[in-house]
Amino acid sequence: MARKSTNVTHNPHLVKLPERLERNQHKSGVMWFTGLPGSGKSTITTNLERRLFAEGYQVSIIDNELVREGLSSDLGYSHEDRTENIRRAGEVAALLSRAGRIVLSGFIAPYRRDRETAREAAEEGFHEVFLNPGAEVCESRDSGRLYEQARAGSIPDFTGVSAPYEEPLSPELIIDTGVVSVAETIDLLVGYIDTEFRL
Amino acid sequence: MARKSTNVTHNPHLVKLPERLERNQHKSGVMWFTGLPGSGKSTITTNLERRLFAEGYQVSIIDNELVREGLSSDLGYSHEDRTENIRRAGEVAALLSRAGRIVLSGFIAPYRRDRETAREAAEEGFHEVFLNPGAEVCESRDSGRLYEQARAGSIPDFTGVSAPYEEPLSPELIIDTGVVSVAETIDLLVGYIDTEFRL
Repeated sequence: MARKSTNVTHNPHLVKLPERLERNQHKSGVMWFTGLPGSGKSTITTNLERRLFAEGYQVSIIDNELVREGLSSDLGYSHEDRTENIRRAGEVAALLSRAGRIVLSGFIAPYRRDRETAREAAEEGFHEVFLNPGAEVCESRDSGRLYEQARAGSIPDFTGVSAPYEEPLSPELIIDTGVVSVAETIDLLVGYIDTEFRL
Repeated sequence: MARKSTNVTHNPHLVKLPERLERNQHKSGVMWFTGLPGSGKSTITTNLERRLFAEGYQVSIIDNELVREGLSSDLGYSHEDRTENIRRAGEVAALLSRAGRIVLSGFIAPYRRDRETAREAAEEGFHEVFLNPGAEVCESRDSGRLYEQARAGSIPDFTGVSAPYEEPLSPELIIDTGVVSVAETIDLLVGYIDTEFRL
């Protein structure tokens, strides 16, 4: 992407990240959930946020709905637009992380390169979590009947049917949400976060 | 702008804004600072953040530097690109506000329509603050020698010299930062926020 922004004045902020972390009593960072439609991203991120909030964490979700309805409402579903959508999502996640928060990011984000861009934006504290119950389980769930519509051709470029999904090569976590229950997955993730985001 | 995002699944989040506000013990919202280059946006927002943080507020700055270096790094300074930059900034401000934070937004944002777009994105709790010491004072400060370079023609489309600035018609606050000192301005704004963001 061409860098066009220039003549940006440097104005250092006076409240630094370590102070924010000290107040929050935990590190900040991005838990980036990826997986096929039906892999459990929404269920896991919303229930995990509930648990983390109850435990006192400063936590936010960013997901496709949130971003597509505002920041990315000008984008469609071509490869180029998906890439730009994930680039923006990664920048927002990084920005929330720099504000001291734990970000739970739930996007299909089918392209490996795009997820790497999000990791680079975060700079540190980025944890990629691959929810992988397998393609058949994902399609068999099909709660919103999206796979059905995609198979019928009424949704074009549907990841897992008519658009590719590139599996992560070295995610921090892989969870088979076809076998591990929601409650178990949440427990596992809370344990991981209690450790990884300890000051 | 054409709306291209479709087929967005609705996944309600389980932690609602009122819970966040209850924990933070203050309302969330956007303090949107606008004014010519040299009007004091950076000085005021950085010092205000320092004070609000010390008082226990959940507060973030978003400014041109932050946005241009990441989210808007693909944009230049044409009217169209400035509009898109402020649209994105407004969406990010809204997102931080919905996460329970007070957002101090410092952008020249020279077009009235663009600031209205930011207000609409925030939905509520949006306060426009016009820092207005007058154009001559702004140019006489010229700390980064940007006005000088703009007058010499080496910075094109410079607001106040070679690009327009549309003054707010009905901002929540107007502060003449040529007369009111930085310390007085901060005191005034902290008083305003203590009142307006009280739960």
